Amino acid sequence: MPVNHVKALMFDVFGTVVDWRSSVVREAAALAEKKGLDGDWEGFADDWRGLYQPMMAKVREGEMGWTDLDTLHRMGLDTLLASYGLEDLSEPELEHLTRAWQRLDPWPEAVTGMNRLKSRYIVAALSNGHIALIVNMAKRAGIPWDVVLGAEVASAYKPQPAAYLGSVAALKLEPEQCLMVATHDNDLAAAACGLATAYVHRRHELGPSERKPGPSGSYDFVAEDFNDLADQLGCS
Amino acid sequence: MPVNHVKALMFDVFGTVVDWRSSVVREAAALAEKKGLDGDWEGFADDWRGLYQPMMAKVREGEMGWTDLDTLHRMGLDTLLASYGLEDLSEPELEHLTRAWQRLDPWPEAVTGMNRLKSRYIVAALSNGHIALIVNMAKRAGIPWDVVLGAEVASAYKPQPAAYLGSVAALKLEPEQCLMVATHDNDLAAAACGLATAYVHRRHELGPSERKPGPSGSYDFVAEDFNDLADQLGCS
Repeated sequence: MPVNHVKALMFDVFGTVVDWRSSVVREAAALAEKKGLDGDWEGFADDWRGLYQPMMAKVREGEMGWTDLDTLHRMGLDTLLASYGLEDLSEPELEHLTRAWQRLDPWPEAVTGMNRLKSRYIVAALSNGHIALIVNMAKRAGIPWDVVLGAEVASAYKPQPAAYLGSVAALKLEPEQCLMVATHDNDLAAAACGLATAYVHRRHELGPSERKPGPSGSYDFVAEDFNDLADQLGCS
Repeated sequence: MPVNHVKALMFDVFGTVVDWRSSVVREAAALAEKKGLDGDWEGFADDWRGLYQPMMAKVREGEMGWTDLDTLHRMGLDTLLASYGLEDLSEPELEHLTRAWQRLDPWPEAVTGMNRLKSRYIVAALSNGHIALIVNMAKRAGIPWDVVLGAEVASAYKPQPAAYLGSVAALKLEPEQCLMVATHDNDLAAAACGLATAYVHRRHELGPSERKPGPSGSYDFVAEDFNDLADQLGCS
């Protein structure tokens, strides 16, 4: 696909821009230490994240009405409390832990790389996270969004076509003027809607000792990180 | 109203952040020069802007379905062509002129002042302009929005309460955690929805020889410009 008419880069956020796993482990471990609890917080983070897709699937399939990610995260957390000895957390502690998903750290080069990309393109969040979550995360982490689109603006969760096409329409662009950037093949289903695609390796998204196998699809760009993508797109 | 729990500043854009009048005059005069046309481009800018409120009123009152500002601007422009000798503009020229509303210059201190405010608060566009218009304007002018809310996100035009409350809800805040910043009394109808309010003098919004009379209502803040507002809010 020719990409010289691309005007906007649309980013998946969890995993692509921010390292959700190490951040959630840190948040859970900090709360546990304060409460004098021991536990496998890596397993906890993985289990919590693991509940995300099946719960969103219920929304996509109409089994649940529109439910934002704070609420889905809290519902997921509630199912894990007994397994991880967290039954005695207070309501404010549970809310604080749920909002850990707003306190995620970017990958080390992500903000630098995104600022390079921003010099030439609109940089848009196209996340399944809602606006408030993405804005609060960005304020804390210094992520320089031009605009926050995604699930809430489009009222659809990726990979539903409406999630991509509603975000494209909000910028009054054509799909081929938008480049979807993600580290997950399922986000890059955007290609079927006519968007250009870039797969970014985040080899340690699933843990420091894990190594993601890389893309299973074929994309317009495959980049090591955002600086590499900026290089490939000719950004200074 | 106590304002120490304010988390987000919500800005009117046309007139408050950008000097629409001198920018539209510049754009019209540049096109006229290219076409060898003479005209009163200040009068043209005023007449064009003057069509904005009555057309939006038709949307608010349900006489027209939801219509974005590009379309309303174009409808307004079409009614002015004969009066200003612009009948012979080509379709691309008419589209270029309509998009003059995306090429507006900020008031001289606006970007500096907003960056100061952004260091402490979420800075959100709460405009009757749609997302694409506000984003394109911001990219050209360097306006550092954290998030673009307003008419399109809320599906309502100010001063309809839903325009304010839908934007507040998108940030998952309470109305009193939001401060509406505008140079127009009608935008500051936000107060009736529970938002804090700041009136910013833009004394020459209506032209270099005009002087706006100042606020007719009573607001939490009255500021000379965004730097003054940043001073009053204790931003460094």
